[in-house]
Amino acid sequence: MAKLTQLIDNEVFRAYATYMTIVLLKMMLMSFITAYFRIRRKAFANPEDVVSFGKGESAKKYLRTDVDVERVRRGHLNDLENIVPFLGIGLLYALSGPELSTALLHFRIFAGARILHTIAYLTPLPQPGRGLSWAVGCVVTFSMAYKVLKTGLYL
Amino acid sequence: MAKLTQLIDNEVFRAYATYMTIVLLKMMLMSFITAYFRIRRKAFANPEDVVSFGKGESAKKYLRTDVDVERVRRGHLNDLENIVPFLGIGLLYALSGPELSTALLHFRIFAGARILHTIAYLTPLPQPGRGLSWAVGCVVTFSMAYKVLKTGLYL
Amino acid sequence: MAKLTQLIDNEVFRAYATYMTIVLLKMMLMSFITAYFRIRRKAFANPEDVVSFGKGESAKKYLRTDVDVERVRRGHLNDLENIVPFLGIGLLYALSGPELSTALLHFRIFAGARILHTIAYLTPLPQPGRGLSWAVGCVVTFSMAYKVLKTGLYL
Repeated sequence: MAKLTQLIDNEVFRAYATYMTIVLLKMMLMSFITAYFRIRRKAFANPEDVVSFGKGESAKKYLRTDVDVERVRRGHLNDLENIVPFLGIGLLYALSGPELSTALLHFRIFAGARILHTIAYLTPLPQPGRGLSWAVGCVVTFSMAYKVLKTGLYL
Repeated sequence: MAKLTQLIDNEVFRAYATYMTIVLLKMMLMSFITAYFRIRRKAFANPEDVVSFGKGESAKKYLRTDVDVERVRRGHLNDLENIVPFLGIGLLYALSGPELSTALLHFRIFAGARILHTIAYLTPLPQPGRGLSWAVGCVVTFSMAYKVLKTGLYL
Repeated sequence: MAKLTQLIDNEVFRAYATYMTIVLLKMMLMSFITAYFRIRRKAFANPEDVVSFGKGESAKKYLRTDVDVERVRRGHLNDLENIVPFLGIGLLYALSGPELSTALLHFRIFAGARILHTIAYLTPLPQPGRGLSWAVGCVVTFSMAYKVLKTGLYL
């Protein structure tokens, strides 16, 4: 840790960095799963993606939507909608001086909830599995937002 | 503020933290409004979300799009497209040493514009209400980007 | 640079600030390109956007999707999916004490790859142009994530 600037030479910030990176890598995984299903199901969105399947009508039939591709894409968008708030509010929370154990609890539950959300979405697990994992992530983010506003509110 | 690390123990950063948190919470609200309309209009995207409505065809009819659900989702996506640049550029701007009054002006106008954008989208208000509120948010972000590049450009 | 707080008074952080701002501005450009195609192709998503074209059925025909509008929107969403991880992981990477030359290499390649991705998507260029530019951006982000986790892992 010698090279880290002073700011992040503290354990709460390192924990934030670790879990934020894990969650963002998990989100990037969705792109690869989308690509996998697009290729396996031969369901593409752009004409230039299907030229290798032949010319004209024979290739055009692969320009279509597929239920599993769309499912992965919805999971990816839900990640964006929930991980962006965590990225911003989590950073401010990490800088607001929380107890290390409290911060770890927040980060771990959030990361776990988002990983469960993806599993629940892609399996798919019966509801309320996906709904609950989404809600838990929201509650963690709200709790961090409360701490940020309580510590540093400046309107 | 005693527990804040030195970095953010300054008023500009606290203002950024406050308005960023408000804007991100507003964005998260869109998920709840989407869920509200999905349940009220019985318009869902996933088969596992409609099993409680019965089996087979009787439940399948609720797998559909609804104009109001799609409207909220477009508003949510527009939030993502505009709040992500504010998250990144705003953070760098807050660290670039602006005057407190100038920074507050930027943050307040941006937050107000995004809240108006949501109201204009969901009511819906006649154009150019929504278009103008979107454009004002862009102008604020461009102004902050100019300050960041002027202060710290390093290509 | 006199007014910059100590934290970002270093060249790696200034490089991050510069390239992050450039990439976010490029992403915002997608909104303007979408608006341009919506107006030029008369393809809108909201009833309130088409009232200036007349009342009733004569305006309703402009509530439609257009292949080029959808293409720009897919490019915009792909930007979000890839620039959000760069925003978060890049910030942590910049704070993890990399060599300036290594950091510049990462930031420049990422920014170049995303600009090429947009050109490849909008032209459109034949594959694998778009696929490769997307993959290069991913590899850069993975490399930065590896450095962040190696330097500051705290589970």
